[in-house]
Amino acid sequence: MAQFPNEQSNDGEFTRQEDAFRQWITPDGVTGFPPEKRRYHLYVSLACPWAHRTLIVRHLLGLEETVSVTVADPVRDERGWAFHEGDGHSRDEVNGFEFLSEAYHATDPQFKGRITVPVLWDRERKLIVNNSEDDICRMFVHGFETCHTRRCNLFPTEHAEEQKALSAFIYEKVNNGVYKAGFATSQAVYKQAVRELFIALDELESRLANRNEPYLMGKEAVESDWRMFCTLIRFDAVYHGHFKCNIRQIKDYPQLSRYLRRLYHQPGISETVNMDHIKRHYYMTHEDINPSKIVPSGPDLSWLEVPVE
Amino acid sequence: MAQFPNEQSNDGEFTRQEDAFRQWITPDGVTGFPPEKRRYHLYVSLACPWAHRTLIVRHLLGLEETVSVTVADPVRDERGWAFHEGDGHSRDEVNGFEFLSEAYHATDPQFKGRITVPVLWDRERKLIVNNSEDDICRMFVHGFETCHTRRCNLFPTEHAEEQKALSAFIYEKVNNGVYKAGFATSQAVYKQAVRELFIALDELESRLANRNEPYLMGKEAVESDWRMFCTLIRFDAVYHGHFKCNIRQIKDYPQLSRYLRRLYHQPGISETVNMDHIKRHYYMTHEDINPSKIVPSGPDLSWLEVPVE
Repeated sequence: MAQFPNEQSNDGEFTRQEDAFRQWITPDGVTGFPPEKRRYHLYVSLACPWAHRTLIVRHLLGLEETVSVTVADPVRDERGWAFHEGDGHSRDEVNGFEFLSEAYHATDPQFKGRITVPVLWDRERKLIVNNSEDDICRMFVHGFETCHTRRCNLFPTEHAEEQKALSAFIYEKVNNGVYKAGFATSQAVYKQAVRELFIALDELESRLANRNEPYLMGKEAVESDWRMFCTLIRFDAVYHGHFKCNIRQIKDYPQLSRYLRRLYHQPGISETVNMDHIKRHYYMTHEDINPSKIVPSGPDLSWLEVPVE
Repeated sequence: MAQFPNEQSNDGEFTRQEDAFRQWITPDGVTGFPPEKRRYHLYVSLACPWAHRTLIVRHLLGLEETVSVTVADPVRDERGWAFHEGDGHSRDEVNGFEFLSEAYHATDPQFKGRITVPVLWDRERKLIVNNSEDDICRMFVHGFETCHTRRCNLFPTEHAEEQKALSAFIYEKVNNGVYKAGFATSQAVYKQAVRELFIALDELESRLANRNEPYLMGKEAVESDWRMFCTLIRFDAVYHGHFKCNIRQIKDYPQLSRYLRRLYHQPGISETVNMDHIKRHYYMTHEDINPSKIVPSGPDLSWLEVPVE
């Protein structure tokens, strides 16, 4: 019994598929994708941690007027991510897609993989430019530089190598680590995944304590911090219970919980967090994990609302 | 989809069946069940909160030599509670039952209900005397008085009415409250059950804070406290995640967490707690709730091991 059979190894391990569409927007447009205002459209789910990061970067660089967004229904059935009117989500005004799969098949009629968010769509060429959140964030930074309306140095060059290693570590052990635990179908694979996840969280807790700076790389939040944020903000609400990542909650980590609050209270960030979408997505979509589809009332996340002094 | 279809209402509510066998051991034996040493045998699971209370009361009154015990395998399949050698459980040396259902059918060949622990068995008449944990605890106190080797006033007469009301409240809202949440099959029934559970926990937290005494009824632990204990000790490990009682953990309640540690560190009590049996029972037995049967590695319960100064 596996959530995504094609991404499950024989010993019960979840092995995430590679993103399929990796074209690139460059400032000079030499790739065929120049950075034009209102040409590109982002399809996201507010539930998804990968899509969430693209929304945050879009906000931090002030690309709201440049790149439009459609939010999918957080509850996914066998037809995949869908667009229609609802609380915090809407129909697709750009293409009139009912399902995100239509974007995939418009781009590649043979596409057979799992349909995922985020998707960056080109209105002009009527195809998906890219469906990798890492690529999309990089393009927002480097491809759309002429369109930025806010300044934010997400990839500072002076510590690029250190940041690259840190982001790879966070991806492997934290962002994807919770999924490895949650989608494991054997006790041994689960146990190892949770162990590695909490070793990583303990390390990041120590890093914050030892360096005594507000963010992982120093005084300013960089892309690695927002990468952490998208998992941490979901941790106590869904990964702790639904994915059985339950050694501790983020609330129990003095440094990580303050760090999470510090990021959450940056201007415009809490507006990108929709806890209702997050909880309903995980608990109602993974029927193999939660057949009743009952969404927990907890946890009490009021601690998150207290700004860091 | 319901864990126990015969105990499920049409609107998704879990309604626990009544205990079937309610005969009584009295000091004078007028009921046909005199309190003789080594005549009675207790079948329990260390996972079950109801059975746990009988084991605790047996210990508090020093009835270990009087009433023998067999512990069932914590993981139950469709054949019900079973006896065989394993870690912390064993075969049935008294009757050679492989399954607890044999005790039920030896007593009532027509028995059709759910097979539950605890069961108090009479070696002489070869039948179940009683399968109600409340009755068994009362009989240990009043029926076996001549056999007590430790003194413990579990039902002090001076506040009997208050204690009765308190115990009824704890049963309804806490002991059974977690099951009402965990076995609910509709969102509305779940939501109401969790709400009532946490209102009750908040009330009990306030009671401890306001009275400023170590136990619910005063300076000594009474039966109501042990009734609380059997649910609280399981709360963070299984009810919080598996039963979605996740507004808060007991760890998060200053009073209740100290109170739980205070009870846990009474002599002989931690020996009645088998966290491995508790976790494996809940996560591996309720397939409708946890189809993968994966048992979480957490939570970290090391805080429980710290005695209350």
